[in-house]
Amino acid sequence: MISCSLERLDDKIKTFSKFGDTGKGGITRFSLSHEATAARAEFKKRMEALGATVVTDDMANMYATLPGAEDLPAIATGSHLDSVRQGGNYDGVLGVLAAMEAAETIVRENIPHRHPITVVVWTNEEGARFEPAMMSSGVITGKFDKAAMLKSFAKDVPGYSFGEALEKSGYKGSEENRLTADKYAALIELHIEQGPVLDSEGIDIGVVEGVCGMINYEFTFTGQAGHAGTTPMKYRKDALYAAVKAIQHLHDELDRLDSRLVYTTGKISCHPNIHTIIPGEVKFTLDARHQDPKVLKKVMDIIKKMPAEIEKCKTGYREDWSRKTVNFTPGLVDIVERCAREYGYSSRRMYSGPGHDAQYLIDLIPTTMIFVPSVGGHSHSELEHTPTESCLKGVNVLLDTLLTIDSTK
Amino acid sequence: MISCSLERLDDKIKTFSKFGDTGKGGITRFSLSHEATAARAEFKKRMEALGATVVTDDMANMYATLPGAEDLPAIATGSHLDSVRQGGNYDGVLGVLAAMEAAETIVRENIPHRHPITVVVWTNEEGARFEPAMMSSGVITGKFDKAAMLKSFAKDVPGYSFGEALEKSGYKGSEENRLTADKYAALIELHIEQGPVLDSEGIDIGVVEGVCGMINYEFTFTGQAGHAGTTPMKYRKDALYAAVKAIQHLHDELDRLDSRLVYTTGKISCHPNIHTIIPGEVKFTLDARHQDPKVLKKVMDIIKKMPAEIEKCKTGYREDWSRKTVNFTPGLVDIVERCAREYGYSSRRMYSGPGHDAQYLIDLIPTTMIFVPSVGGHSHSELEHTPTESCLKGVNVLLDTLLTIDSTK
Repeated sequence: MISCSLERLDDKIKTFSKFGDTGKGGITRFSLSHEATAARAEFKKRMEALGATVVTDDMANMYATLPGAEDLPAIATGSHLDSVRQGGNYDGVLGVLAAMEAAETIVRENIPHRHPITVVVWTNEEGARFEPAMMSSGVITGKFDKAAMLKSFAKDVPGYSFGEALEKSGYKGSEENRLTADKYAALIELHIEQGPVLDSEGIDIGVVEGVCGMINYEFTFTGQAGHAGTTPMKYRKDALYAAVKAIQHLHDELDRLDSRLVYTTGKISCHPNIHTIIPGEVKFTLDARHQDPKVLKKVMDIIKKMPAEIEKCKTGYREDWSRKTVNFTPGLVDIVERCAREYGYSSRRMYSGPGHDAQYLIDLIPTTMIFVPSVGGHSHSELEHTPTESCLKGVNVLLDTLLTIDSTK
Repeated sequence: MISCSLERLDDKIKTFSKFGDTGKGGITRFSLSHEATAARAEFKKRMEALGATVVTDDMANMYATLPGAEDLPAIATGSHLDSVRQGGNYDGVLGVLAAMEAAETIVRENIPHRHPITVVVWTNEEGARFEPAMMSSGVITGKFDKAAMLKSFAKDVPGYSFGEALEKSGYKGSEENRLTADKYAALIELHIEQGPVLDSEGIDIGVVEGVCGMINYEFTFTGQAGHAGTTPMKYRKDALYAAVKAIQHLHDELDRLDSRLVYTTGKISCHPNIHTIIPGEVKFTLDARHQDPKVLKKVMDIIKKMPAEIEKCKTGYREDWSRKTVNFTPGLVDIVERCAREYGYSSRRMYSGPGHDAQYLIDLIPTTMIFVPSVGGHSHSELEHTPTESCLKGVNVLLDTLLTIDSTK
């Protein structure tokens, strides 16, 4: 079996870690920032050195293409180079570096391929400075209105728009360069898992079947604020205690559904939030994710059956937003699994909890993803880490997957 | 039985409601503010019109004294004129107006009295702008260091000290005017209950036996922040869920102790408090109050037995502050109860949950309090209300109590 180069991959990881280095083990590399365009320049330079033609589309998505032996649509692979504030050196960027290393191996080893191979970089996946996340894959797949996206303003600089950042970046290209169904045959995105499953189970490769559907609700409990020292317990309408009962109720009910369901109350607010005042109003969120829409439907049924009154407090809820489960192309999922097996790497099928550009691209072309472990499950954190040896296993599976598609499509 | 005047009391309540009127049914009258000094001027004018001599001490506490027939220590009664932000028209001020009305009745009805009768106004009871609460009764009873109090800075204006406000107020007097044990025989403070008990039980008069002891704890739960979409439930260390379990545990345990125990989790904070992140750290407060130190001891025992780990999160707690139970002078408590009975008013003995100046003054002289109902239990709110008819019952009991002390001491 052919293997990509550990040394070259390590050099790539180390080099790209400098663009936006926080000095604390991670990076802050907002999309189209100075740090991000420096990373793009390095990407362009390295890909051109391999003989690739690099173009950008009107959302500054980058496409670096190695020509194929035949006149066929290209096989694409890549991810994003931008990060959240104080993010890590693996989320997104590893998918670009893996694609670069696979391409470099093809070139250096003179591996024949019928299709062109395109390494892609998606603009503004994180949405860390300009919302929403997955902005540019969203635009080219028709999820988002481009004009509205150009008017997305920076969270930190009033009046500074994404459109302005795009113009200034030097990477805005032509709409005709966008990835389309006629010019591309498939897309493979490699990414760190961003969770603890592969790491804790000692598994090399996550064979990603899709992206979990999710629902986000906000609950409100309305009681009666009152003096902590004067209101006997029997007269109280304590909104926080009602919320506590509700969170426990949700846990008890949701735990019965399916072991793969994940649900989280991440945010809680209490009013007036003074230690000597009985809380009058409490709100909390519920985020729930599962690949099976039937399970999410059961979650919603449980929410709808929440008693209208808990501990004499009025209960309310509203759906903030939701996302349907995305299933990746089964044939490609099978190829990834088979390639991992051929290398002797352990693998498990899994769904992604977080969103990725790939979940939008599948609306255009056959798509799947490959996960590698995240040590300790850290993500969106300077603690993010995956040993280069583990990354390399993912890169090898990626290369083999690209070549398998190339030979069978 | 002699009765004070409903019309005069109503006029007093309406007049004093203008000083700091929020226009929404309440007042904002921070101690020594323009609004508060206007209320003081009205107090002085009215008391002098009754023939009282008005002096202030070095903390601007006001003493308006009607001379007695004999050379005896004075009997004092009063409360405070300051309010919290958007407070009500009864907390504190009603105790001053009740004392003024009792004094006015004595003067107009030519009721003989052996002791001087002194109507007092304590400075900065609420501590709403300059902390701590009960500042000036605290200084004259030795609870607080005066020099430190003068350096208490306004919460809203950096660098503006209580000492400066005191100088500017025009009400700073001499230390020799302070209430002392040799010059005063007793103190009676009338106050609204600030809770729902008298109102909901339809009782006219609260015979206040003392002020509940209280303890304040802060609990901390340390888990592991993580992505809501990638961390299976079994790998989680969810600090909010640990806190929910702990609040329920405290409720279950504390509910067994005594029906008069009140305890409150009023404040909760969650980090990072983002709906897609599993909470890594949660803190909440516990305020518990009871008149019997043995019950509070049991509360502390329950806290100390809190498991060191809940839901895989580390638990911790610390005492923020505490206050010992204060018992008022039994002989005076009996007099208040007897006076209520003589008027045919219903009464019940009770402890105050909130703190009052009277709890400090008892260290100098025999002291007790009289409560009147708070409709709906509202307090520290523009919704505060007690019908003047209900207030008048309290004023009558106050007058009778003063005259009973006058005749028996």
